[in-house]
Amino acid sequence: MRVGIIGLGLIGGSLGLDLTAKGYEVIGVSRNPETCSKALRKGVASTSGVDFSLLKGCDMVVIATPIEYILPTLKNLVPYLSPHTVVTDVGSVKESIVASAQEIWSNFVGSHPMAGTANSGIDAVEKDLFKDAPCVITPNDNTSVRAIALVEKMWLSVGCKILTTTPTIHDQAVAWISHLPVIISANLIYSCLGEKDEKVRIFAEKIASSGFRDTSRVGGGNPELGLMMAKNNQKNVLNSLKEYQNKLDTIINNIESNNWSEIEQLLKTTQTKRNDFLIDN
Amino acid sequence: MRVGIIGLGLIGGSLGLDLTAKGYEVIGVSRNPETCSKALRKGVASTSGVDFSLLKGCDMVVIATPIEYILPTLKNLVPYLSPHTVVTDVGSVKESIVASAQEIWSNFVGSHPMAGTANSGIDAVEKDLFKDAPCVITPNDNTSVRAIALVEKMWLSVGCKILTTTPTIHDQAVAWISHLPVIISANLIYSCLGEKDEKVRIFAEKIASSGFRDTSRVGGGNPELGLMMAKNNQKNVLNSLKEYQNKLDTIINNIESNNWSEIEQLLKTTQTKRNDFLIDN
Repeated sequence: MRVGIIGLGLIGGSLGLDLTAKGYEVIGVSRNPETCSKALRKGVASTSGVDFSLLKGCDMVVIATPIEYILPTLKNLVPYLSPHTVVTDVGSVKESIVASAQEIWSNFVGSHPMAGTANSGIDAVEKDLFKDAPCVITPNDNTSVRAIALVEKMWLSVGCKILTTTPTIHDQAVAWISHLPVIISANLIYSCLGEKDEKVRIFAEKIASSGFRDTSRVGGGNPELGLMMAKNNQKNVLNSLKEYQNKLDTIINNIESNNWSEIEQLLKTTQTKRNDFLIDN
Repeated sequence: MRVGIIGLGLIGGSLGLDLTAKGYEVIGVSRNPETCSKALRKGVASTSGVDFSLLKGCDMVVIATPIEYILPTLKNLVPYLSPHTVVTDVGSVKESIVASAQEIWSNFVGSHPMAGTANSGIDAVEKDLFKDAPCVITPNDNTSVRAIALVEKMWLSVGCKILTTTPTIHDQAVAWISHLPVIISANLIYSCLGEKDEKVRIFAEKIASSGFRDTSRVGGGNPELGLMMAKNNQKNVLNSLKEYQNKLDTIINNIESNNWSEIEQLLKTTQTKRNDFLIDN
Protein backbone atom coordinates (compact mmCIF):
# COMPACT_ATOMS: atom_id res chain seq x y z
CA MET A 1 0.00 0.00 0.00
CA ARG A 2 1.17 3.47 -0.93
CA VAL A 3 0.67 5.97 1.90
CA GLY A 4 1.29 9.70 1.72
CA ILE A 5 2.01 11.69 4.87
CA ILE A 6 1.76 15.50 4.88
CA GLY A 7 3.56 17.08 7.84
CA LEU A 8 6.65 15.25 9.07
CA GLY A 9 6.69 16.26 12.74
CA LEU A 10 6.63 13.96 15.75
CA ILE A 11 3.34 12.28 14.77
CA GLY A 12 3.62 12.23 10.96
CA GLY A 13 7.31 11.37 11.05
CA SER A 14 6.98 8.58 13.62
CA LEU A 15 4.06 7.12 11.65
CA GLY A 16 6.20 7.14 8.50
CA LEU A 17 9.05 5.44 10.33
CA ASP A 18 6.87 2.56 11.52
CA LEU A 19 4.93 2.19 8.25
CA THR A 20 8.19 2.10 6.26
CA ALA A 21 9.50 -0.58 8.64
CA LYS A 22 6.30 -2.60 8.04
CA GLY A 23 6.84 -2.55 4.27
CA TYR A 24 4.45 0.23 3.28
CA GLU A 25 5.60 2.58 0.53
CA VAL A 26 5.64 5.97 2.28
CA ILE A 27 5.70 9.34 0.49
CA GLY A 28 6.54 12.16 2.89
CA VAL A 29 5.61 15.77 2.14
CA SER A 30 6.74 18.79 4.16
CA ARG A 31 6.88 22.53 3.41
CA ASN A 32 10.50 22.47 4.50
CA PRO A 33 13.06 20.88 2.09
CA GLU A 34 15.46 20.26 4.97
CA THR A 35 12.78 18.24 6.79
CA CYS A 36 12.34 16.18 3.60
CA SER A 37 16.08 15.38 3.48
CA LYS A 38 16.02 14.35 7.11
CA ALA A 39 12.94 12.19 6.50
CA LEU A 40 14.82 10.26 3.82
CA ARG A 41 17.93 9.90 5.99
CA LYS A 42 15.93 8.70 9.00
CA GLY A 43 13.87 6.15 7.04
CA VAL A 44 10.61 8.05 7.62
CA ALA A 45 9.73 7.85 3.90
CA SER A 46 11.10 6.30 0.73
CA THR A 47 10.21 9.41 -1.28
CA SER A 48 10.04 12.90 0.16
CA GLY A 49 9.61 16.43 -1.13
CA VAL A 50 7.69 19.68 -0.85
CA ASP A 51 5.32 19.06 -3.78
CA PHE A 52 1.82 17.57 -3.46
CA SER A 53 2.17 16.04 -6.95
CA LEU A 54 4.34 13.35 -5.32
CA LEU A 55 1.15 12.05 -3.68
CA LYS A 56 -0.49 11.03 -6.97
CA GLY A 57 -1.61 7.41 -6.92
CA CYS A 58 -1.57 7.05 -3.10
CA ASP A 59 -4.11 4.64 -1.59
CA MET A 60 -4.18 6.75 1.56
CA VAL A 61 -3.00 10.20 2.61
CA VAL A 62 -2.53 11.15 6.27
CA ILE A 63 -2.67 14.89 7.01
CA ALA A 64 -0.42 15.28 10.05
CA THR A 65 -0.23 19.08 10.17
CA PRO A 66 -1.30 21.25 13.13
CA ILE A 67 -5.12 21.41 13.41
CA GLU A 68 -5.60 24.79 11.75
CA TYR A 69 -3.88 23.65 8.54
CA ILE A 70 -5.86 20.40 8.08
CA LEU A 71 -8.73 21.83 6.00
CA PRO A 72 -6.61 24.22 3.88
CA THR A 73 -4.17 21.35 3.22
CA LEU A 74 -7.00 19.03 2.15
CA LYS A 75 -8.32 21.67 -0.29
CA ASN A 76 -4.88 22.02 -1.91
CA LEU A 77 -4.48 18.25 -2.00
CA VAL A 78 -7.70 17.38 -3.89
CA PRO A 79 -6.32 17.93 -7.44
CA TYR A 80 -3.71 15.22 -6.82
CA LEU A 81 -6.01 12.53 -5.39
CA SER A 82 -7.36 9.47 -7.22
CA PRO A 83 -11.08 8.77 -6.67
CA HIS A 84 -10.28 5.74 -4.48
CA THR A 85 -7.79 7.57 -2.20
CA VAL A 86 -8.78 7.62 1.45
CA VAL A 87 -7.70 10.68 3.46
CA THR A 88 -7.37 10.85 7.23
CA ASP A 89 -5.88 13.29 9.74
CA VAL A 90 -4.39 13.15 13.25
CA GLY A 91 -6.09 16.19 14.80
CA SER A 92 -7.00 16.21 18.50
CA VAL A 93 -10.45 17.68 17.82
CA LYS A 94 -12.83 16.15 15.33
CA GLU A 95 -16.26 17.81 15.07
CA SER A 96 -15.08 20.97 13.32
CA ILE A 97 -12.79 18.98 11.02
CA VAL A 98 -14.75 15.90 9.95
CA ALA A 99 -17.95 17.45 8.53
CA SER A 100 -16.05 20.07 6.48
CA ALA A 101 -13.40 17.60 5.37
CA GLN A 102 -16.02 15.17 4.09
CA GLU A 103 -17.58 17.95 2.03
CA ILE A 104 -14.19 18.55 0.44
CA TRP A 105 -13.36 14.85 0.00
CA SER A 106 -16.03 12.20 0.61
CA ASN A 107 -13.43 9.49 1.35
CA PHE A 108 -12.27 11.33 4.48
CA VAL A 109 -12.21 9.57 7.86
CA GLY A 110 -11.14 11.40 11.04
CA SER A 111 -8.43 9.83 13.23
CA HIS A 112 -6.94 10.85 16.56
CA PRO A 113 -3.95 8.75 17.60
CA MET A 114 -3.41 9.58 21.29
CA ALA A 115 0.35 9.37 21.38
CA GLY A 116 3.09 11.91 21.89
CA THR A 117 6.08 12.97 23.89
CA ALA A 118 7.19 16.33 25.26
CA ASN A 119 9.14 16.91 22.04
CA SER A 120 8.15 17.92 18.52
CA GLY A 121 9.47 18.05 14.96
CA ILE A 122 11.26 15.57 12.71
CA ASP A 123 14.20 15.33 15.14
CA ALA A 124 11.83 13.95 17.79
CA VAL A 125 10.49 11.01 15.74
CA GLU A 126 10.37 7.70 17.59
CA LYS A 127 10.03 4.08 16.59
CA ASP A 128 6.96 2.39 18.14
CA LEU A 129 5.48 5.72 19.27
CA PHE A 130 1.98 4.34 18.64
CA LYS A 131 2.43 0.94 20.27
CA ASP A 132 -0.56 0.32 22.59
CA ALA A 133 -1.75 3.93 22.19
CA PRO A 134 -5.49 4.44 21.74
CA CYS A 135 -6.44 5.72 18.27
CA VAL A 136 -9.93 7.12 17.98
CA ILE A 137 -11.62 6.80 14.57
CA THR A 138 -14.60 9.12 14.09
CA PRO A 139 -16.68 8.07 11.08
CA ASN A 140 -20.13 9.53 10.53
CA ASP A 141 -23.17 8.28 8.61
CA ASN A 142 -21.63 9.25 5.26
CA THR A 143 -18.32 7.43 5.73
CA SER A 144 -17.81 4.29 3.62
CA VAL A 145 -17.03 0.96 5.28
CA ARG A 146 -14.05 0.54 2.93
CA ALA A 147 -12.53 3.85 4.01
CA ILE A 148 -12.96 3.02 7.71
CA ALA A 149 -11.39 -0.41 7.23
CA LEU A 150 -8.35 1.02 5.44
CA VAL A 151 -7.70 3.65 8.12
CA GLU A 152 -8.13 1.08 10.92
CA LYS A 153 -5.75 -1.30 9.18
CA MET A 154 -3.04 1.36 9.01
CA TRP A 155 -3.30 2.33 12.71
CA LEU A 156 -3.48 -1.31 13.79
CA SER A 157 -0.31 -2.04 11.82
CA VAL A 158 1.65 0.46 13.95
CA GLY A 159 0.27 -1.00 17.20
CA CYS A 160 -2.67 1.28 18.05
CA LYS A 161 -5.74 0.11 19.93
CA ILE A 162 -8.72 1.27 17.85
CA LEU A 163 -11.69 2.99 19.46
CA THR A 164 -14.60 4.25 17.38
CA THR A 165 -17.07 7.00 18.21
CA THR A 166 -18.77 10.05 16.73
CA PRO A 167 -16.84 13.33 16.31
CA THR A 168 -19.20 14.93 18.87
CA ILE A 169 -18.63 12.34 21.61
CA HIS A 170 -14.90 12.38 20.88
CA ASP A 171 -14.68 16.14 21.36
CA GLN A 172 -16.71 16.12 24.57
CA ALA A 173 -14.66 13.24 26.01
CA VAL A 174 -11.26 14.80 25.19
CA ALA A 175 -12.43 18.07 26.75
CA TRP A 176 -12.83 16.18 30.05
CA ILE A 177 -9.76 14.00 30.14
CA SER A 178 -7.25 15.94 28.07
CA HIS A 179 -8.13 19.62 27.61
CA LEU A 180 -9.59 20.33 31.09
CA PRO A 181 -6.48 18.83 32.78
CA VAL A 182 -4.22 21.19 30.78
CA ILE A 183 -6.13 24.29 31.91
CA ILE A 184 -6.50 23.34 35.59
CA SER A 185 -2.88 22.22 35.73
CA ALA A 186 -1.66 25.48 34.16
CA ASN A 187 -3.82 27.44 36.58
CA LEU A 188 -2.16 25.64 39.52
CA ILE A 189 1.22 27.00 38.46
CA TYR A 190 -0.27 30.42 37.68
CA SER A 191 -1.99 30.63 41.07
CA CYS A 192 1.17 29.73 42.97
CA LEU A 193 2.96 32.53 41.11
CA GLY A 194 0.23 34.86 42.42
CA GLU A 195 1.44 34.55 46.03
CA LYS A 196 2.39 38.12 46.92
CA ASP A 197 4.68 37.33 49.87
CA GLU A 198 7.98 36.60 48.18
CA LYS A 199 9.28 34.61 51.16
CA VAL A 200 6.33 32.22 50.91
CA ARG A 201 6.60 31.89 47.12
CA ILE A 202 10.33 31.18 47.22
CA PHE A 203 9.91 28.65 50.02
CA ALA A 204 7.06 26.97 48.11
CA GLU A 205 9.36 26.65 45.08
CA LYS A 206 11.99 25.01 47.28
CA ILE A 207 9.74 22.37 48.79
CA ALA A 208 7.58 21.51 45.75
CA SER A 209 7.98 17.80 45.07
CA SER A 210 6.25 14.90 43.31
CA GLY A 211 2.66 16.00 44.03
CA PHE A 212 3.23 19.42 42.52
CA ARG A 213 5.34 17.98 39.72
CA ASP A 214 2.68 15.53 38.54
CA THR A 215 -0.29 17.87 38.96
CA SER A 216 1.48 20.67 37.06
CA ARG A 217 3.01 18.55 34.28
CA VAL A 218 0.49 19.05 31.47
CA GLY A 219 -0.02 22.70 32.43
CA GLY A 220 3.69 23.31 31.88
CA GLY A 221 3.67 21.69 28.43
CA ASN A 222 3.78 23.11 24.90
CA PRO A 223 1.73 26.37 24.95
CA GLU A 224 0.75 26.03 21.28
CA LEU A 225 -0.92 22.66 21.89
CA GLY A 226 -2.88 24.00 24.86
CA LEU A 227 -3.97 27.05 22.90
CA MET A 228 -5.08 24.91 19.93
CA MET A 229 -7.16 22.69 22.23
CA ALA A 230 -8.96 25.67 23.77
CA LYS A 231 -9.50 27.36 20.42
CA ASN A 232 -10.67 24.34 18.47
CA ASN A 233 -12.74 22.69 21.17
CA GLN A 234 -13.95 25.95 22.71
CA LYS A 235 -17.57 24.95 23.40
CA ASN A 236 -16.74 21.67 25.15
CA VAL A 237 -13.75 23.10 27.02
CA LEU A 238 -15.96 25.88 28.38
CA ASN A 239 -18.63 23.38 29.38
CA SER A 240 -16.08 21.30 31.31
CA LEU A 241 -14.48 24.35 32.90
CA LYS A 242 -17.84 25.68 34.11
CA GLU A 243 -18.78 22.33 35.64
CA TYR A 244 -15.34 22.31 37.30
CA GLN A 245 -15.85 25.87 38.56
CA ASN A 246 -19.28 25.04 40.06
CA LYS A 247 -17.94 22.01 41.87
CA LEU A 248 -14.97 24.03 43.16
CA ASP A 249 -17.40 26.63 44.58
CA THR A 250 -19.11 23.86 46.53
CA ILE A 251 -15.78 22.55 47.84
CA ILE A 252 -14.72 26.04 48.99
CA ASN A 253 -18.08 26.53 50.73
CA ASN A 254 -17.77 23.16 52.45
CA ILE A 255 -14.25 23.86 53.70
CA GLU A 256 -15.32 27.34 54.84
CA SER A 257 -18.32 25.92 56.74
CA ASN A 258 -16.41 23.01 58.31
CA ASN A 259 -18.59 20.51 56.41
CA TRP A 260 -15.84 17.92 56.76
CA SER A 261 -18.07 14.92 56.07
CA GLU A 262 -18.77 16.37 52.59
CA ILE A 263 -15.04 16.78 51.91
CA GLU A 264 -14.34 13.29 53.18
CA GLN A 265 -17.09 11.84 50.97
CA LEU A 266 -15.71 13.70 47.94
CA LEU A 267 -12.18 12.40 48.52
CA LYS A 268 -13.43 8.85 49.06
CA THR A 269 -15.39 9.04 45.80
CA THR A 270 -12.44 10.37 43.81
CA GLN A 271 -10.11 7.73 45.30
CA THR A 272 -12.48 4.95 44.18
CA LYS A 273 -13.66 6.35 40.86
CA ARG A 274 -10.23 7.39 39.54
CA ASN A 275 -9.61 3.73 38.78
CA ASP A 276 -12.45 3.70 36.24
CA PHE A 277 -10.35 6.05 34.11
CA LEU A 278 -7.15 4.05 34.42
CA ILE A 279 -8.26 0.54 33.50
CA ASP A 280 -6.54 -0.65 30.32
CA ASN A 281 -3.97 2.13 30.49
CA MET B 1 21.80 8.39 71.00
CA ARG B 2 18.56 6.95 72.35
CA VAL B 3 15.57 7.92 70.18
CA GLY B 4 11.93 7.14 70.94
CA ILE B 5 9.37 6.99 68.15
CA ILE B 6 5.65 7.10 68.90
CA GLY B 7 3.52 5.87 66.00
CA LEU B 8 5.08 3.13 63.88
CA GLY B 9 3.37 3.72 60.53
CA LEU B 10 5.06 4.44 57.21
CA ILE B 11 6.91 7.54 58.47
CA GLY B 12 7.68 6.52 62.06
CA GLY B 13 8.49 2.94 61.10
CA SER B 14 10.74 3.86 58.17
CA LEU B 15 12.56 6.39 60.35
CA GLY B 16 13.14 3.69 62.99
CA LEU B 17 14.45 1.30 60.35
CA ASP B 18 17.06 3.78 59.09
CA LEU B 19 18.05 5.05 62.55
CA THR B 20 18.51 1.48 63.81
CA ALA B 21 20.67 0.73 60.77
CA LYS B 22 22.79 3.82 61.57
CA GLY B 23 23.44 2.57 65.11
CA TYR B 24 20.93 4.66 67.05
CA GLU B 25 19.14 2.93 69.91
CA VAL B 26 15.49 3.11 68.86
CA ILE B 27 12.51 2.61 71.21
CA GLY B 28 9.27 2.17 69.25
CA VAL B 29 5.87 2.78 70.85
CA SER B 30 2.54 1.97 69.25
CA ARG B 31 -1.00 1.57 70.64
CA ASN B 32 -1.18 -1.78 68.88
CA PRO B 33 0.84 -4.69 70.40
CA GLU B 34 0.87 -6.48 67.04
CA THR B 35 2.55 -3.45 65.46
CA CYS B 36 5.16 -3.54 68.21
CA SER B 37 5.95 -7.21 67.46
CA LYS B 38 6.27 -6.42 63.76
CA ALA B 39 8.52 -3.45 64.56
CA LEU B 40 10.92 -5.74 66.42
CA ARG B 41 10.85 -8.37 63.65
CA LYS B 42 11.47 -5.80 60.92
CA GLY B 43 14.35 -4.07 62.72
CA VAL B 44 12.39 -0.83 63.15
CA ALA B 45 13.30 -0.67 66.86
CA SER B 46 15.42 -2.57 69.35
CA THR B 47 12.76 -2.17 72.06
CA SER B 48 9.05 -1.83 71.34
CA GLY B 49 5.83 -1.77 73.35
CA VAL B 50 2.59 0.07 74.07
CA ASP B 51 3.76 1.85 77.20
CA PHE B 52 5.19 5.40 77.30
CA SER B 53 7.34 4.43 80.30
CA LEU B 54 9.66 2.70 77.79
CA LEU B 55 10.64 6.18 76.60
CA LYS B 56 12.27 7.20 79.88
CA GLY B 57 15.82 8.43 79.36
CA CYS B 58 15.46 9.12 75.63
CA ASP B 59 17.56 11.98 74.21
CA MET B 60 14.90 12.57 71.59
CA VAL B 61 11.29 11.50 71.01
CA VAL B 62 9.65 11.72 67.57
CA ILE B 63 5.85 11.87 67.59
CA ALA B 64 4.87 10.24 64.29
CA THR B 65 1.13 9.94 64.85
CA PRO B 66 -1.58 11.48 62.63
CA ILE B 67 -1.76 15.28 63.13
CA GLU B 68 -4.78 15.33 65.45
CA TYR B 69 -3.03 13.07 67.98
CA ILE B 70 0.23 15.04 68.20
CA LEU B 71 -0.76 17.41 71.04
CA PRO B 72 -2.69 14.84 73.12
CA THR B 73 0.24 12.42 72.73
CA LEU B 74 2.72 15.06 73.88
CA LYS B 75 0.62 15.81 76.98
CA ASN B 76 0.57 12.13 77.95
CA LEU B 77 4.28 11.84 77.23
CA VAL B 78 5.50 14.67 79.51
CA PRO B 79 5.63 12.62 82.78
CA TYR B 80 8.15 10.26 81.14
CA LEU B 81 10.54 12.88 79.73
CA SER B 82 13.89 13.96 81.18
CA PRO B 83 14.49 17.73 81.23
CA HIS B 84 17.04 17.45 78.38
CA THR B 85 14.81 15.38 76.07
CA VAL B 86 14.07 17.05 72.73
CA VAL B 87 10.68 16.26 71.19
CA THR B 88 9.79 16.66 67.53
CA ASP B 89 6.90 15.59 65.27
CA VAL B 90 6.38 14.80 61.58
CA GLY B 91 3.11 16.66 60.98
CA SER B 92 2.39 18.27 57.61
CA VAL B 93 1.06 21.47 59.20
CA LYS B 94 3.06 23.38 61.78
CA GLU B 95 1.49 26.65 62.97
CA SER B 96 -1.29 25.04 65.03
CA ILE B 97 1.11 22.44 66.45
CA VAL B 98 4.32 24.27 67.28
CA ALA B 99 3.09 27.07 69.54
CA SER B 100 0.91 24.75 71.64
CA ALA B 101 3.53 22.00 71.74
CA GLN B 102 6.18 24.41 73.02
CA GLU B 103 3.85 25.48 75.82
CA ILE B 104 3.55 21.83 76.83
CA TRP B 105 7.28 21.04 76.38
CA SER B 106 9.76 23.84 75.82
CA ASN B 107 12.27 21.53 74.11
CA PHE B 108 9.86 20.92 71.22
CA VAL B 109 10.95 21.57 67.59
CA GLY B 110 8.53 21.05 64.68
CA SER B 111 9.66 18.87 61.76
CA HIS B 112 8.00 18.00 58.46
CA PRO B 113 9.87 15.33 56.49
CA MET B 114 8.36 15.48 52.99
CA ALA B 115 8.52 11.82 52.12
CA GLY B 116 5.92 9.14 51.59
CA THR B 117 4.49 6.54 49.28
CA ALA B 118 0.92 5.60 48.36
CA ASN B 119 0.96 3.05 51.20
CA SER B 120 0.64 3.34 54.97
CA GLY B 121 1.17 1.35 58.16
CA ILE B 122 4.04 -0.74 59.52
CA ASP B 123 3.80 -3.15 56.57
CA ALA B 124 4.67 -0.28 54.24
CA VAL B 125 7.95 0.74 55.91
CA GLU B 126 10.83 1.32 53.51
CA LYS B 127 14.57 1.58 53.86
CA ASP B 128 15.97 4.94 52.66
CA LEU B 129 12.49 6.51 52.48
CA PHE B 130 13.99 9.86 53.51
CA LYS B 131 17.01 9.84 51.23
CA ASP B 132 17.19 13.24 49.45
CA ALA B 133 13.72 14.21 50.73
CA PRO B 134 13.31 17.78 51.99
CA CYS B 135 12.72 18.00 55.74
CA VAL B 136 11.41 21.33 56.97
CA ILE B 137 12.37 22.36 60.51
CA THR B 138 10.21 25.11 61.98
CA PRO B 139 11.81 26.61 65.08
CA ASN B 140 10.51 29.85 66.56
CA ASP B 141 12.10 32.51 68.76
CA ASN B 142 11.78 30.32 71.85
CA THR B 143 13.47 27.24 70.42
CA SER B 144 16.94 26.45 71.75
CA VAL B 145 19.89 26.09 69.40
CA ARG B 146 20.76 22.74 71.00
CA ALA B 147 17.27 21.34 70.29
CA ILE B 148 17.40 22.48 66.65
CA ALA B 149 20.86 20.97 66.18
CA LEU B 150 19.79 17.60 67.59
CA VAL B 151 16.69 17.38 65.36
CA GLU B 152 18.68 18.42 62.27
CA LYS B 153 21.34 15.83 63.05
CA MET B 154 18.75 13.07 63.19
CA TRP B 155 17.09 13.98 59.86
CA LEU B 156 20.46 14.50 58.18
CA SER B 157 21.54 11.03 59.32
CA VAL B 158 18.69 9.43 57.34
CA GLY B 159 19.49 11.47 54.23
CA CYS B 160 17.11 14.43 54.40
CA LYS B 161 17.91 17.84 52.98
CA ILE B 162 17.18 20.31 55.78
CA LEU B 163 15.19 23.48 55.12
CA THR B 164 14.35 25.91 57.90
CA THR B 165 11.50 28.39 58.08
CA THR B 166 8.78 29.67 60.40
CA PRO B 167 5.64 27.61 61.06
CA THR B 168 3.59 30.33 59.33
CA ILE B 169 5.61 30.38 56.11
CA HIS B 170 5.70 26.57 56.11
CA ASP B 171 1.92 26.31 56.28
CA GLN B 172 1.33 28.90 53.57
CA ALA B 173 3.87 27.25 51.26
CA VAL B 174 2.50 23.71 51.68
CA ALA B 175 -1.00 25.04 51.02
CA TRP B 176 0.22 26.11 47.55
CA ILE B 177 2.34 23.19 46.48
CA SER B 178 0.83 20.27 48.38
CA HIS B 179 -2.71 20.93 49.66
CA LEU B 180 -4.05 22.97 46.71
CA PRO B 181 -2.90 20.29 44.22
CA VAL B 182 -4.84 17.62 46.16
CA ILE B 183 -8.09 19.59 46.00
CA ILE B 184 -7.86 20.67 42.36
CA SER B 185 -6.79 17.17 41.33
CA ALA B 186 -9.70 15.57 43.22
CA ASN B 187 -12.07 18.08 41.65
CA LEU B 188 -10.86 17.05 38.18
CA ILE B 189 -12.00 13.48 38.81
CA TYR B 190 -15.21 14.68 40.46
CA SER B 191 -16.06 17.00 37.57
CA CYS B 192 -15.53 14.27 34.96
CA LEU B 193 -17.94 12.08 36.95
CA GLY B 194 -20.46 14.92 36.62
CA GLU B 195 -20.83 14.41 32.85
CA LYS B 196 -24.51 13.52 32.48
CA ASP B 197 -24.29 11.86 29.05
CA GLU B 198 -23.26 8.32 29.94
CA LYS B 199 -21.87 7.66 26.45
CA VAL B 200 -19.47 10.59 26.81
CA ARG B 201 -18.44 9.62 30.34
CA ILE B 202 -17.75 6.02 29.41
CA PHE B 203 -15.81 7.04 26.32
CA ALA B 204 -13.80 9.54 28.40
CA GLU B 205 -12.91 6.72 30.82
CA LYS B 206 -11.71 4.61 27.88
CA ILE B 207 -9.40 7.20 26.37
CA ALA B 208 -8.00 8.76 29.55
CA SER B 209 -4.21 8.38 29.45
CA SER B 210 -1.04 9.86 30.94
CA GLY B 211 -2.24 13.48 31.12
CA PHE B 212 -5.32 12.53 33.10
CA ARG B 213 -3.38 9.98 35.14
CA ASP B 214 -0.75 12.47 36.32
CA THR B 215 -3.12 15.38 36.92
CA SER B 216 -5.52 13.19 38.93
CA ARG B 217 -2.92 11.26 40.94
CA VAL B 218 -2.87 13.18 44.21
CA GLY B 219 -6.66 13.74 44.07
CA GLY B 220 -7.15 9.97 44.00
CA GLY B 221 -4.92 9.40 47.04
CA ASN B 222 -5.64 8.60 50.70
CA PRO B 223 -8.85 10.52 51.62
CA GLU B 224 -7.82 10.82 55.28
CA LEU B 225 -4.64 12.67 54.37
CA GLY B 226 -6.50 15.11 52.13
CA LEU B 227 -9.12 15.72 54.80
CA MET B 228 -6.46 16.32 57.47
CA MET B 229 -4.72 18.87 55.23
CA ALA B 230 -7.93 20.83 54.64
CA LYS B 231 -8.96 20.67 58.30
CA ASN B 232 -5.61 21.56 59.84
CA ASN B 233 -4.51 24.15 57.31
CA GLN B 234 -7.99 25.52 56.65
CA LYS B 235 -7.13 29.25 56.49
CA ASN B 236 -4.23 28.84 54.05
CA VAL B 237 -5.99 26.22 51.94
CA LEU B 238 -8.99 28.54 51.56
CA ASN B 239 -6.71 31.44 50.63
CA SER B 240 -5.03 29.36 47.90
CA LEU B 241 -8.34 27.98 46.63
CA LYS B 242 -9.86 31.45 46.34
CA GLU B 243 -6.86 32.77 44.42
CA TYR B 244 -7.15 29.70 42.17
CA GLN B 245 -10.88 30.30 41.70
CA ASN B 246 -10.36 33.97 40.76
CA LYS B 247 -7.72 33.10 38.20
CA LEU B 248 -9.95 30.36 36.76
CA ASP B 249 -12.76 32.91 36.34
CA THR B 250 -10.41 35.05 34.27
CA ILE B 251 -9.37 32.07 32.14
CA ILE B 252 -13.01 31.13 31.47
CA ASN B 253 -13.81 34.73 30.51
CA ASN B 254 -10.83 34.86 28.18
CA ILE B 255 -11.76 31.60 26.43
CA GLU B 256 -15.38 32.75 26.17
CA SER B 257 -14.35 36.09 24.66
CA ASN B 258 -11.79 34.62 22.25
CA ASN B 259 -8.96 36.48 24.02
CA TRP B 260 -6.50 33.94 22.68
CA SER B 261 -3.42 36.09 23.22
CA GLU B 262 -4.19 36.10 26.97
CA ILE B 263 -4.47 32.30 27.01
CA GLU B 264 -1.28 31.96 25.00
CA GLN B 265 0.56 34.30 27.39
CA LEU B 266 -0.71 32.31 30.40
CA LEU B 267 0.47 29.00 28.92
CA LYS B 268 3.86 30.46 27.99
CA THR B 269 4.28 31.77 31.54
CA THR B 270 3.35 28.45 33.14
CA GLN B 271 5.66 26.53 30.79
CA THR B 272 8.60 28.74 31.79
CA LYS B 273 7.83 29.24 35.46
CA ARG B 274 7.06 25.60 36.29
CA ASN B 275 10.82 24.99 36.22
CA ASP B 276 11.32 27.32 39.20
CA PHE B 277 9.41 24.78 41.30
CA LEU B 278 11.30 21.75 40.03
CA ILE B 279 14.90 22.80 40.48
CA ASP B 280 16.70 20.59 42.99
CA ASN B 281 13.92 18.01 42.96
